[in-house]
Amino acid sequence: MDKFKRNERIAIMTQVLSEAPNRIFTFSHFCDLFGAAKSTISEDVAILSETLRTFKIGTLETVTGAAGGMRYRPGVMEGKGRELMESICEMLRSADRILPGGFLYFSDILSDPSLVSGMGHIFAAQHYESGIDFVLTMETKGIPVALMTAKALNVPLIIARRSSKVYEGSAVNINYVSGKGDIETMSLSRRAVKEGSTALIVDDFMRGGGTARGMLSLLQEFNCKCAGMCFVMALDDPDRRKFDNEKSLILMEKIKDGECARVRVSDWVK
Amino acid sequence: MDKFKRNERIAIMTQVLSEAPNRIFTFSHFCDLFGAAKSTISEDVAILSETLRTFKIGTLETVTGAAGGMRYRPGVMEGKGRELMESICEMLRSADRILPGGFLYFSDILSDPSLVSGMGHIFAAQHYESGIDFVLTMETKGIPVALMTAKALNVPLIIARRSSKVYEGSAVNINYVSGKGDIETMSLSRRAVKEGSTALIVDDFMRGGGTARGMLSLLQEFNCKCAGMCFVMALDDPDRRKFDNEKSLILMEKIKDGECARVRVSDWVK
Repeated sequence: MDKFKRNERIAIMTQVLSEAPNRIFTFSHFCDLFGAAKSTISEDVAILSETLRTFKIGTLETVTGAAGGMRYRPGVMEGKGRELMESICEMLRSADRILPGGFLYFSDILSDPSLVSGMGHIFAAQHYESGIDFVLTMETKGIPVALMTAKALNVPLIIARRSSKVYEGSAVNINYVSGKGDIETMSLSRRAVKEGSTALIVDDFMRGGGTARGMLSLLQEFNCKCAGMCFVMALDDPDRRKFDNEKSLILMEKIKDGECARVRVSDWVK
Repeated sequence: MDKFKRNERIAIMTQVLSEAPNRIFTFSHFCDLFGAAKSTISEDVAILSETLRTFKIGTLETVTGAAGGMRYRPGVMEGKGRELMESICEMLRSADRILPGGFLYFSDILSDPSLVSGMGHIFAAQHYESGIDFVLTMETKGIPVALMTAKALNVPLIIARRSSKVYEGSAVNINYVSGKGDIETMSLSRRAVKEGSTALIVDDFMRGGGTARGMLSLLQEFNCKCAGMCFVMALDDPDRRKFDNEKSLILMEKIKDGECARVRVSDWVK
């Protein structure tokens, strides 16, 4: 005899799994929570898994082996990723977003929790099988999207700084050439990164690739691999050599005097 | 005749509501999604609401009026908030977290998606009724917790910078005296903030209150109210005058030579 109804168990399981994407929960975890038999939980998982598949909002898989259990991975509902990014592009095309010097204002978009959460899910969905150990970003504007990507992947976020800070302990500093041609510094705390692990780089904007190259050199210092690079926006420059596994959600042409931003969603975004 | 079973509808509703806390969804939204009658959805909502209450993991309320519908607010399971913060304190007590100069390393905790998400829920739960329009933080380390708080409250995050940036447009800059007695600058983009709105300040650490006072002056420049201040950690100093509605999750004594951090969870955290 079960203490809770199937409806109730499924509601709570969905909530717990959504809050902790890509984390493996044992069947016992839910058996204990509900005072239910393993066979009951197995049936619940089968129903939930099928429902998530039907609505294409994620996958719930059974993971076998010693550390086995179930694992929820948020997906992006068919067409919803593109719809989200199209709506962001529409916002970006507004004339009042053009700043003096031809800069585009999009800080508000980069720290809107609901938008960055959606973008984080899109990035994560590309990298569930890449063996990512941590997400790396460079302060400041990319942090929210990077955090949401890290949350979906269930890995830590590590933030590279513009200079080393006393409260981060000993750090590795490198110099790199920024998009504007200046020599800049990038610093990563020694204790933050495990030697030999695999990173996913997530950042807000890619112009010439200077910051991205900086992050790659920093990773080399720790003998870390880079499994991919995700940018919210990239300058649409066919002449620029692309990085391996580079993906940008939005492509933007160089802003011309007196014009609005010409932006479009990348083809890979579904 | 309904296209989907109750189980299936409840699973999807839970997932959709969890992903968008504190947002009002109309009943029609789910009627359309499931091809179901309003009476059916109402029954689903009643079941889900009761289940969430039983497990104390949040509330699902019906909101009446023209903009009515249902709204999910994540809660913190009885005792779970305290349990989370106790576990973080235990991590902080480790001897190898003490850095030269008596600083405590806790950057890793401040950017761990699962930990900051939990802390964000605790902060948000204190402020669902405070009429918060946006969360304000100062770059860099408080951004993840501030973002998760903003997500739970369904409001934008606004990030104050150490200097004004070309890509943020015109900005209001103020000077403030830091904890170390230095004069520092804080900058907030004009277009980011709506005059007369209400802010919740969220930051990682409160020592003497210099940065917090800086953020308050910045808010004054925009005629904004501050409904509360949330800090992950505060220096446990009985002599310091407290701010209105100030809340810290962890209290830390000044670190003495050769000792580990003496930290404890604040009494209000349940």
